[in-house]
Amino acid sequence: MSSFNYFSGDTIAALATPPGVSALAVIRVSGPEAIELVNSVFKGKNLTEQETHTLHFGKIVKGEDFIDEVLVSVFKAPKSFSGENLVEISCHGSNYIVATILKLLVSKGVRYANPGEFTRRAFLNGKFDLVQAEAIADLIHSDSEVSHHMAMNQMRGGFSNKISLLRERLVNFASLLELELDFSEEDVEFADRSHLKSLILEMQTEIEILTDSFSLGNVLKEGIPTVIAGKPNAGKSTLLNALLNEEKAMVSEIAGTTRDVIEDEITISGVKFRFIDTAGLRETEDTLEAMGIERTMKKLDEASLIIYLYDINSTSEEELNQVEADLKKRSTPYILVANKADKLPVLEPTTHNAQLTTIRISAAQKTNLEELKARLLTLINAEGFKSGNTVITNARHHENLLKVSGALKLTIDALERNLSNDFLALEIRQALYYLGELTGSITTEDLLGNIFSKFCIGK
Amino acid sequence: MSSFNYFSGDTIAALATPPGVSALAVIRVSGPEAIELVNSVFKGKNLTEQETHTLHFGKIVKGEDFIDEVLVSVFKAPKSFSGENLVEISCHGSNYIVATILKLLVSKGVRYANPGEFTRRAFLNGKFDLVQAEAIADLIHSDSEVSHHMAMNQMRGGFSNKISLLRERLVNFASLLELELDFSEEDVEFADRSHLKSLILEMQTEIEILTDSFSLGNVLKEGIPTVIAGKPNAGKSTLLNALLNEEKAMVSEIAGTTRDVIEDEITISGVKFRFIDTAGLRETEDTLEAMGIERTMKKLDEASLIIYLYDINSTSEEELNQVEADLKKRSTPYILVANKADKLPVLEPTTHNAQLTTIRISAAQKTNLEELKARLLTLINAEGFKSGNTVITNARHHENLLKVSGALKLTIDALERNLSNDFLALEIRQALYYLGELTGSITTEDLLGNIFSKFCIGK
Repeated sequence: MSSFNYFSGDTIAALATPPGVSALAVIRVSGPEAIELVNSVFKGKNLTEQETHTLHFGKIVKGEDFIDEVLVSVFKAPKSFSGENLVEISCHGSNYIVATILKLLVSKGVRYANPGEFTRRAFLNGKFDLVQAEAIADLIHSDSEVSHHMAMNQMRGGFSNKISLLRERLVNFASLLELELDFSEEDVEFADRSHLKSLILEMQTEIEILTDSFSLGNVLKEGIPTVIAGKPNAGKSTLLNALLNEEKAMVSEIAGTTRDVIEDEITISGVKFRFIDTAGLRETEDTLEAMGIERTMKKLDEASLIIYLYDINSTSEEELNQVEADLKKRSTPYILVANKADKLPVLEPTTHNAQLTTIRISAAQKTNLEELKARLLTLINAEGFKSGNTVITNARHHENLLKVSGALKLTIDALERNLSNDFLALEIRQALYYLGELTGSITTEDLLGNIFSKFCIGK
Repeated sequence: MSSFNYFSGDTIAALATPPGVSALAVIRVSGPEAIELVNSVFKGKNLTEQETHTLHFGKIVKGEDFIDEVLVSVFKAPKSFSGENLVEISCHGSNYIVATILKLLVSKGVRYANPGEFTRRAFLNGKFDLVQAEAIADLIHSDSEVSHHMAMNQMRGGFSNKISLLRERLVNFASLLELELDFSEEDVEFADRSHLKSLILEMQTEIEILTDSFSLGNVLKEGIPTVIAGKPNAGKSTLLNALLNEEKAMVSEIAGTTRDVIEDEITISGVKFRFIDTAGLRETEDTLEAMGIERTMKKLDEASLIIYLYDINSTSEEELNQVEADLKKRSTPYILVANKADKLPVLEPTTHNAQLTTIRISAAQKTNLEELKARLLTLINAEGFKSGNTVITNARHHENLLKVSGALKLTIDALERNLSNDFLALEIRQALYYLGELTGSITTEDLLGNIFSKFCIGK
């Protein structure tokens, strides 16, 4: 946990729920005067006399005018989301009412909140570290089981707790080194060099695991880039639609929650697959080998998974062997999908049926699609993804960890080359700085501004 | 207040805030098992042991999986919105999280709520009458001060309280008449015919005021239909944009609330003006008189307000007099607006400047627009609209009141023609039935289904 420097600014307010016509809307008000200011437009119990975490029914009034019947939740500093006095006004979900209440509060001295300002205040009040604050934004944007899982893991401390512990141990060494510098004329050694080296190696290992997880984490968060390749009329659109429709049905089943289903994203068992536009591949009549034009290759290079779809009724054994040979040259997992199996003359065996990477389906008849999905999950090692291993999903964290790693490498160098304490202390300080920036124990206005401006208003 | 027939159904749940990415989302759960069922997925205090109107921090869990940190509000029957046990779960505003929590609740035995089902249950539990329930939907959709005011007035009892009192008095007479029927062989008169007649006349007066207010109420709710007429290049679009832009700025100032500003709607001092497409009028070079084609006339007939815009630099006195003569033939309030006054050669007087119905502006320079707005409000008697007089805005209420009025008229007829008690009682019963349907003390499944299906889900 970062150091606790209690922050108290002016009083801010914002709509915390999406704008739109609905049963309810929630307006959040945070700051030293939050309770008094809401009380000044509230007709009901005196809110300033209420305990924290209490709920009060009443009316929002503008002079004689009655604006709405509301439920008000009172939270007192430091026991609130922001760590300040905080009030949530639950009113009717009308934009007119929300705008009127916000204007009314502003007329009493409240300021419209900036994006992420509530979370920023929570961070400044030591409610969580910077990595956890960023996880809240990821959590809100999570749209699959895996991305939700990763964000939740990060929000609950995830890797930042571990990093903080390692940082504390490094801080101890740093203080001992500083002490040596104070006694530099006496040639004492407070900091055990071999212990320092093993700590740094331990840190290097931890950090390498995290930085290595970034490409995976990023892919899981944004969706597994997947190419469906194949000749025209192999049934690519039919397959995509068959997979999509099922998901749409699943989504519409949850009354009241509409999700913008992006046409080329499919979530299978909580893992999101993002289909790369393969228009280029569709235009050619040739096999994969023949499609060796730069643009097509680039598409395949972007993919973390390749589905090669072919018409089982019109594809020769020879052609298929060529395709598979081409696919094997890549490190990308692939699956050969024989489509239109429903039109197959009976009893014609193929050699491509027993392996994990080959399957017969009918996209039109929706035959064997469940098996196809199961195989896709196996191919990308979905279980491994879901196991809760700590994964970095944020480019800022990745970049910062690489900087830490660089500084630690220089520290090891300094140790191995027996450089003076000055050099050693300098490198360690640099590593500590980057670590501090990561979790937010060291912050600058620029860093915070950059992070929180990407949040939604009301968060 | 309608009779209290305590309703208790299964337990329902829905998202009560708009779908979308945001700081918060609120899921509402109502029904006899609401508290137990939420408690079964909640990690924190035992919700079943908590008092009504209390707030609890905790986690929603699915077995071992941690779905979200939430704040749960507990309301116990009958002290809740729906009159049933009710729980509101305030979670992070992620569609994934909302869908997951809803699915989890459904797996425990909750059912997805139908549109308006929470309000329907509140009505069935005697929380308010049908007119008030309908006002909640109007309140949510209100988008101007006046429409908000009317909905709020209606929600707080408005005309339905008055109607209920009159209905009660009529019910008394009805029972006395029924009593007379029981003693029909004895020729007694329990119900004083002259008192009955004066009550019915009183009701007729009240109902006439209400039915008369409907066209006004409807116009205020939907926006005052306004035509901007004038020759091409008089500056109609410039004027509309000048008025619109100001409002857009006003709207965007309220950070976090985006409102779909419909291009041809403008709210001036809380009164909405809806501009009727006058493409037909724009195409002609002729004056109003010459534009007497059916289509144009129809547009003008639809209008509750006509703005005639002309270029002061190129419009002759004679032409203007003709336009005004045409306008005076209509009962619709109008205003003659002299545009492009900024290009006017100095010191050229016009005879059209001292009256309420004429004004000089410059739409391009935004000169005198405030004065124009003030005059529009005066012309449509905006103060009268805002005064809080009871106004009918709902077509169902209007239709029902007309039916009541018809039945009362037949009752008066029966009284005046000294018809037998049987006839009299029949007509009064019919009037009572329509009154009961209005406030909801008499309901049918069809009526309720029709009303509540138009509500949003979660309300």
